[in-house]
This record gives sequence, C-alpha cells and structure tokens, in this order.
Amino acid sequence: MTKIPYKIYLSEDEMPGNWYNLKAVMKELPTPFIHPGTLKPCTADDLRPVFCCDLVDQELNTTDKYIEIPEGIRDFYKMFRPSPLVRAYCLEKLLDTPAEIYYKFEGNNTSGSHKLNSAAAQVYYAKQQGLTSLTTETGAGQWGTALSMACAYYDMALTVYMVKISSQQKPYRKAVMETYGAQVVPSPSNTTEAGKKILADNAETGGSLGCAISEALEVAAKSDNCRYVLGSVLDHVLLHQSVIGQETKTACEKYDINPDIIIGCAGGGSNLGGLIAPFMGDNIDGKNNIKFIAVEPASCPSMTRGKYALDFGDTGQTTPLIRMYTLGSGFMPAPNHAGGLRYHGMSPIVSKLYHDGYMEARSVEQTKVFDAATTFARCEGILPAPESAHALRVAMDEALKCKETGEKKTILFGLTGTGYFDLGAYMSYNEGSIVDYIPTDEDLEKGFASLPDVDVDL
Amino acid sequence: MTKIPYKIYLSEDEMPGNWYNLKAVMKELPTPFIHPGTLKPCTADDLRPVFCCDLVDQELNTTDKYIEIPEGIRDFYKMFRPSPLVRAYCLEKLLDTPAEIYYKFEGNNTSGSHKLNSAAAQVYYAKQQGLTSLTTETGAGQWGTALSMACAYYDMALTVYMVKISSQQKPYRKAVMETYGAQVVPSPSNTTEAGKKILADNAETGGSLGCAISEALEVAAKSDNCRYVLGSVLDHVLLHQSVIGQETKTACEKYDINPDIIIGCAGGGSNLGGLIAPFMGDNIDGKNNIKFIAVEPASCPSMTRGKYALDFGDTGQTTPLIRMYTLGSGFMPAPNHAGGLRYHGMSPIVSKLYHDGYMEARSVEQTKVFDAATTFARCEGILPAPESAHALRVAMDEALKCKETGEKKTILFGLTGTGYFDLGAYMSYNEGSIVDYIPTDEDLEKGFASLPDVDVDL
Repeated sequence: MTKIPYKIYLSEDEMPGNWYNLKAVMKELPTPFIHPGTLKPCTADDLRPVFCCDLVDQELNTTDKYIEIPEGIRDFYKMFRPSPLVRAYCLEKLLDTPAEIYYKFEGNNTSGSHKLNSAAAQVYYAKQQGLTSLTTETGAGQWGTALSMACAYYDMALTVYMVKISSQQKPYRKAVMETYGAQVVPSPSNTTEAGKKILADNAETGGSLGCAISEALEVAAKSDNCRYVLGSVLDHVLLHQSVIGQETKTACEKYDINPDIIIGCAGGGSNLGGLIAPFMGDNIDGKNNIKFIAVEPASCPSMTRGKYALDFGDTGQTTPLIRMYTLGSGFMPAPNHAGGLRYHGMSPIVSKLYHDGYMEARSVEQTKVFDAATTFARCEGILPAPESAHALRVAMDEALKCKETGEKKTILFGLTGTGYFDLGAYMSYNEGSIVDYIPTDEDLEKGFASLPDVDVDL
Repeated sequence: MTKIPYKIYLSEDEMPGNWYNLKAVMKELPTPFIHPGTLKPCTADDLRPVFCCDLVDQELNTTDKYIEIPEGIRDFYKMFRPSPLVRAYCLEKLLDTPAEIYYKFEGNNTSGSHKLNSAAAQVYYAKQQGLTSLTTETGAGQWGTALSMACAYYDMALTVYMVKISSQQKPYRKAVMETYGAQVVPSPSNTTEAGKKILADNAETGGSLGCAISEALEVAAKSDNCRYVLGSVLDHVLLHQSVIGQETKTACEKYDINPDIIIGCAGGGSNLGGLIAPFMGDNIDGKNNIKFIAVEPASCPSMTRGKYALDFGDTGQTTPLIRMYTLGSGFMPAPNHAGGLRYHGMSPIVSKLYHDGYMEARSVEQTKVFDAATTFARCEGILPAPESAHALRVAMDEALKCKETGEKKTILFGLTGTGYFDLGAYMSYNEGSIVDYIPTDEDLEKGFASLPDVDVDL
C-alpha cells in the first residue's frame, strides 16, 4: 500500500455522475410534508408555486437511488470540485493518537462552504424552467453568497433578504453578494407587505431569519417567473449535497480507506446528510457498520434535547408541517457564533435516521469548539468555520479516546467551510470573552409550547 | 489529445523537489547589495546579523541553478500545494476569444496568497539555525498572515509590527495572525526606540511601512536568537517563489501546454519572479521564446516610469543600496487599493531582466482592474485580490487582442491570491467611488530627488 497523500483529489473523470438519494434505500421513510390546513400530505401541485418543478420532483422522489447530475451542473461543479479529502497527518501527530483522521474540505470556493453544491443545482433547474429571478433569505451569509455565485454563473437575477442586523455586522458578506450581482435587501424592508407590517410595529428592529423568509416568500409568490430557494433542511438540498459523500466514497475506495466513524456538524442537516448518504446506504443494506455522529451546539440541541414531532419550518409558521427533531419554531437560540447551526429543527431525513437508531448525536459547547478550531488552524493550516469546528471537536475527542484505548480507528469528518468571515468570533475567543450558552429545561419548555397541537398517522 | 481538465492538480509525486535559481542562468547578474558607507558589495558577514545563515547563502548564490527544497519544507508545502493550474474556459467563452487562458491560482490557503511559499522556507531555516523568534512588518496583512501560519506550524515565536492605521482598518487580519499565535503590535509603538521617537514627534500618526520595518529590524538586532524576515524583493524570496513556476512548468509539460505569454503582477516582484523563473531560464537559453509581462499599478509605476538606479529598500534609508527600478524611496504612492503593489522599488532580479530586454512591463489603472476582477469573479467563481487582478486585466486585454487578430495564443497568468480581506475595495468599486491615481511628472521628480547621489561600477 502506497502512502496516502496529504490531499486526495479525484480527477475530473472520477467525479460522481449521480447524486445519492437516501430515501430510496431507507427502510422507513420520513413523514411527508403535511398541509397545516388539511393535515394531508402536500402534493407536487401544492409545492410548485413555491419551488421550481424539477426540485419538487426531487423532493418527492422516494424510488430512484441515483439521480443523474446534469452536465450543466457538472460543468459548474468542475470550477470548485472535486474537493480534497485530506489526511490530517499533523493533527494526528499533535494528538499523539493511533487513529487515522481524514476530513473532506468544502471551503475552497469564494462562498467558503459546501452551500454552493445545492445553489448550483437549484439555479440550474430554475434556469431550465425559464424562470428569470429567485429570492432567498440569508442570516450569516454563507447561503446568500453561494447563491449569488451560482446566479452570476447561470445569469439569473437574485434578491437576497439579509437579516438587517447581520447586514450591518457583516458588510463584507453583503459586498461579496453585490459583487456577484445580487440585490441585497436588509430585512425587514419596505419592499414587502410582511416587511412593512413588522416595521410598523417596530421601526428599529434588527430583523430575524423568520422575517426574512416571509419577505422572500412573498416576493416569489407574486411573480410567475420567480421562485424561492432554500439552502438546507429540505430533501432535495440533501440530495445535492450527496455529491460530498459520493466523492468521499470514491476517494476512500481508491485508497482503501475504511472509516469506522463519520462525523458532521448539523444545523439544518444538509451537509451531514450529504456527507453520509452513500455510506449510510451501505449501512442500511448491511454492507458496512460505520458509526455516524451528528454534532450540534449545546445552545441549540434539537437532536439531543428536542422532540420528534410535527412542526413548522419557520418562526412565522407559514410552511408545511415537517416531522423532525425540533425545539419548537418559537425557540430562540442564544447568540452562539455558529450562525449556521442556530436552527430550531433538523432535516426530516436526518431526523428519521436518528430516530430509527442509524446514527448518534452529540452536543458541544462553543468554548471547546474554538479550542479545537484554533488547534486545527495552527497545525493543519486551515481556519475552520465555527460550524465546521463542531464536527472537528468530536473528531478530536474520538481520536483522543483512541489514544486512551490504543484503538487504531479511522475517523472521517466534514470540514464544511472556512472561517474567513467569522473573525469577529475568533477575536472574541482570543480575548477570552466567549461564553457557553446552555438552555435550561425551562427554556426548552417555552420552545416546545410553540409546537402545533396536531398529529397525523399516515 | 485529451481535453485539458478545468483544474490541473499535480500529484504529490510530481511536486517539484527543487527551487529554480534564476541568477545561475542569467547572462549578466544584478548588481549585488552595496554597503552605503563603503560603497562595496555587502558580504555574507554583513548580512548574517539581520538574516539567518541559510537565507544569506541563498541570497548570494549565483551558481546553483537548482536548490533542493528540504523535506521539512516540502512536508509543509503539501498542506497547501500543489496549487491548481486552471484553464479559464468560462472566461474564454465570455470574451469570445480564440486564445487559451490559464491561471496558476495561489489563493487556496488561509493566508490567501502565494506569500506562504517563502514564509514556510524562511521559518524552516530559522528553526534549523536554532533561532527562537522572528520579527517582521506587515501593511495590508498578507505577509504577516502567511508568516503567522508558518510560525505556528514550525513552533516559532513571532512579532508582527503592523502599520497602525492598517491594524485599525483590518481588525480581522490582526485576528487571524493572533489566532495563529503571533504577537501583533500596531506600529509605531512604545516597544522600540524607533517607535518612541516617531510617537514623540507625532503621537497621532497612523504609522507607515517604513516605520514598521525600522521597529522590526531594531527588535531583531537586539537579540542573538531573533532575526528579521521579509516577504518580497530579495533574491531568496524569489527563489522560494519559484516553486510556483516549477509546478506550472511541470503541469504545462504534462498536458502539452505551450504558453506564448506569461503575465504576473509586480509589487516587490517575488510572485512574478517565481512564476516565470524556469520559463525565463529557457528563454535565456534560447529554448523558448515566451513574452513575459510585468503588470504594475499606474499609481506606482516603478518599471514603466521609474529609473534603474541604486536606491534604498526602505523609506528610512537604512538598508543596503539595491540597483533596481525605483521611484525613489521618498516616493509616496497614492492610496491605491492594491496595497501589495504600493512599493517604490522592484526586485533586483526582475529589474535586471527588464533592463536587459527579457521582459515587458505595463501599468494599468485600478478602475479597469476592478472591472476585470468583477467579470472574472462572476464567470470563474474566484474573487481575486486587487493585486492579482492587475495580471488578470492584462491577460484579458491580450485575449481581446487575439479576438481582433484571430490569433490562437496561449496566455498564462498568475492569480496570486483572493480578495476576501479586500472587500472594502470592492465595496468602493460597487458604489462607483474608486478613482484612478496617476502621478504627474512633478510627483515623480519629487520621488527621484530622494535617490542617493552615488553610483558604483563593479
């Protein structure tokens, strides 16, 4: 066996031609979206006014294990993929562990994260359908940036409703999106009825993700040639993100790497679901026995302390009902620095797999996350996004366990992005001023009180 | 011939084992450093108190064409190299040009630029010599960040004197360096005599690169175990940067790519000198006939409007005299957004090659540079550093010429880094508020007046 290179890059020929549809291999399927009025499953017709047609088909597809990645998307993927699978030789040495540690690094593109994988696909299909514009919301800014890049590439107009306080705190994120040609509207704004209403109630509000979603949805609903797009949670987003797992699996097979543990951070679940997809499929089929670990912040513990229940996807309670692990759409997460993990719910696919015992979940505190991030930056070079460092933290913990037991496990984690736009958080850490937020049981009860008092048995 | 992939990554086995020393193949050598007191060439003994020994040897080496890259540096290079040589298919299509365009992209590391190539080498040799700490200065922050990363990797203490106004304008650059463990001191400071003197004269000053250099040099000179390191201009820095050219040449040979034109931006000249090194060597030997173009800002036109003369490397006139293209150490460049190109002089090797007719030089205005940068970001994905976009601008101009003439030339340029920490500049461009600075002849005369009135004939 030749030494495994520090970075494994697949060739263009080896890049996956298909996404991996986990729902086609799951023994039991997640509950479909439920219409909150009728309490019946949403049909394709219910979804098409909001999402473009191909994405609706993908959202509802439970039969095709492989879905071909169109050439027009594969061409775009070639600009920033394949992403490297990196052997963390330096981290292993530093930890003095017998474990082998690998990470799949998705940060080598201007948006700085894996979000571009689904942005590319969603804009491509919108273009195919003849749509002329898209709307979305962004909080921390990773998704808005990724979508701006994809819209520039496919020549599609884009309006991003950016949480106002975030657009003020992160003017550079706004500048990147504008450089890519997107119109960025701080939300709440006077451009929508939803925004006007909120401003009338409180002119000084800094906005919220829930409000930005409402504004983006309203604009999309007004025009036949416009649709709304979303960067996580939904099944079709997980499908697109499976390109991460497909590449990882090809690289592992090429170099005979057999992960014992695969770890991903989980906010809405798209990166985790994408990374594990083909490996999980093999687990379900009994072909391997990998331990999967979802890592969430202790401040927003939807899997480790939430309920598996029907809930709305947004704070404004306007979406279909989704059965997922949730803290309740009324739960207000503390201002943890990993903005991308500050979501009350979890992907229905990831939730179902966790509920059925196919994976574990852990929550970690952010001080320990930044300890890991700083250690990693110094020895492996890459400055991780706070979100990504959640997975790193648990990978390091598992490697340290191996040091104790002497086990030579193979640990693989998803390094979803870089922290170049999160340096305010690193500054706080360097100054010793970040703190850990752990919701009390009382805090959680308040969130659970917002859960709708309905259920269905399909 | 198979289609050339969008991105060419060499394998680890194909990575260069040697740097390329241009001085060993040049028909005439640059004038050596001249001691301003004696007007005699500086000896190794003159340089060793300031620079570490191996670097002094490399600085003075005029005989060895190839210098082996030590394994301890190659291991670090594997963390962020090989860098991709990218075929700009999308840009070619957008420009509708028959030309083939390639770029060597050095931005895929946390420091965001090629600077890490020399930082790695300089810290490695300092460590080998048993030194315990280093000092340097940084303005825009790319060099300071690269050096911080290298010092973290090799476990070496580092103090960075950062121009005070820059440390205030770019707190995130400071945060990155501190995350990597460097001590960042806004300059002028009370930690040195030079700094105290400047503060006594003007307590409110925002500092300057010249002042920061003086502070860093003073601290290094005080301790036997500390040395000063520099990120450009010097021959040994160009030598380390030749890893860019070595990789590029290997990739070109592997895919039968034969550049007609190679273009690089030039501030101190290290990236350009490194990119062209082995190609220039072949030109000198008559083995090929590539056109080389150095691109500088119209606001700081050291090659296109400067003099080839003996001059100091710093504003404080404390360095040895260097024969180079210069605007005079007293020239004050306008506040162009490409901070890395705001230097009055130019690498003596690059200057000599230009003086002897081996390359061309062009100056470009920054509005046109940002036009090119934005176009490139939208079609090729990567948001370039303003410095790098100077080379891009001329590459696009050459490709457009090919469109007019119908010539199918192969154009290769160096994309030295990303603009993630330069978004203030992009914001100004998006708002239409950036302007072009072109020094008048009178402005230039003021700079030339600072040239020392000496010459030597060796």
